[in-house]
Amino acid sequence: MLAWRSLVGSLALLVPGRCNSISVRGPSQEEAQSIDQELFSTAGFSVDQLMELAGLSCATAVARAFPLDTDTTKGRTVLVVCGPGNNGGDGLVCARHLKLFGYEPTVFYPKRPKKPLFQGLVTQCHTMEISFLDVLPQAEALSRTFSLVVDAIFGFGFSGEVREPFQSILSTICAATIPVASIDVPSGWDVEIGGSSHDLNPDVLISLTAPKRCTRNFHGRLHFLGGRFVPPTLAQKYELHLPPFPGTDCVTLLP
Amino acid sequence: MLAWRSLVGSLALLVPGRCNSISVRGPSQEEAQSIDQELFSTAGFSVDQLMELAGLSCATAVARAFPLDTDTTKGRTVLVVCGPGNNGGDGLVCARHLKLFGYEPTVFYPKRPKKPLFQGLVTQCHTMEISFLDVLPQAEALSRTFSLVVDAIFGFGFSGEVREPFQSILSTICAATIPVASIDVPSGWDVEIGGSSHDLNPDVLISLTAPKRCTRNFHGRLHFLGGRFVPPTLAQKYELHLPPFPGTDCVTLLP
Repeated sequence: MLAWRSLVGSLALLVPGRCNSISVRGPSQEEAQSIDQELFSTAGFSVDQLMELAGLSCATAVARAFPLDTDTTKGRTVLVVCGPGNNGGDGLVCARHLKLFGYEPTVFYPKRPKKPLFQGLVTQCHTMEISFLDVLPQAEALSRTFSLVVDAIFGFGFSGEVREPFQSILSTICAATIPVASIDVPSGWDVEIGGSSHDLNPDVLISLTAPKRCTRNFHGRLHFLGGRFVPPTLAQKYELHLPPFPGTDCVTLLP
Repeated sequence: MLAWRSLVGSLALLVPGRCNSISVRGPSQEEAQSIDQELFSTAGFSVDQLMELAGLSCATAVARAFPLDTDTTKGRTVLVVCGPGNNGGDGLVCARHLKLFGYEPTVFYPKRPKKPLFQGLVTQCHTMEISFLDVLPQAEALSRTFSLVVDAIFGFGFSGEVREPFQSILSTICAATIPVASIDVPSGWDVEIGGSSHDLNPDVLISLTAPKRCTRNFHGRLHFLGGRFVPPTLAQKYELHLPPFPGTDCVTLLP
């Protein structure tokens, strides 16, 4: 594991990513966790609040990247694959807003935490008549049924090896021929270093709060920043150098 | 009290409001309370979530109605007057997002509930370096200092007489010469019938969830609908006949 990480790290220095290759130093994984902690302690936010804003910005970015064709149902069907933590929660919120925007999201949520927050998010999706899959289809069927996948499996807290069932899930998504939009961090990537050629290669990345270091190795089509809620004092303290958001937009497209 | 209510009710039939005079039947106060209850029970939402979306839509509507002049600081100073309930909470969220949009909000929040939700909202405003007033200035000073007032005093739960300190506060706002944007219901109005000529006459109204019956007597410049979170099943059950929201917008302008 360490070997490919070192290799990818070196390659990143030699062949910097197309997107934000120089401007994004980005917080380290530890700094990202500290910022998160400060938002919920000294800044007084609740997880519910920030997850709502984060998920809303993800749905908005998906709608920008994959606009609805109003004449047909083409592009409406979105599979949102949710992991067991807060990244999965962002995905559930994203699915709900996508439904309100006119998409037809379906959720796959194989490991569900028992916390009331996550149970509430599932109930909200049920009330919005969003379907949940029991089993993930094989790559070919998945590519026929859906127009895109929203990857809400792992976020900035991920480290170590990907375990089952998520290893198989990620293999299936990688083998599918439809585009992927990843929330915050492409699942399976090292948060600071990035992924290898065998890992997920998303078409769209929606960074939340601040782009993490791994995003310098993102070579997809569009990179958005969402989660417009960071108090300027916190951005300064952690030297986040966040770009401006246009007008009242909840996402901004990074260069 | 009953006398003018009947009078206003009759006038409303004879001289329907310029805005939404026919299309808005709107939920009764009791129905609005039932919808609210269903959102938090069967639909599984938390107050934090919906207040965040409601406040965000209020800030977005204010930014549409009073766009920033990017060359000057004109129009940046907004006084957000918050009441003791959820309408006040919406106001605090609105103030925070207005700050992120480049406005300079100041909050007046004379009666603060002890619940953690509201204490958190105040802490968030402090972290965003939003000032709180201890005393409301007289109408003339208020009109000189601020460009507009956001009225977040009473919402759809209000009934009966306005008590102090809010009676004096509303008199001051009425006497000021700057425009007012009211959240959900112009404060002091009967939720079903409306207000009298002595009551608040807002320039902008931002209805949340669904326009209440009193909005047929709103004669201001712009009427927005915010709070884009109502599950279609709930909208059907209560026959809300909500208008579509364009694209990913969190507010829609009513005709």
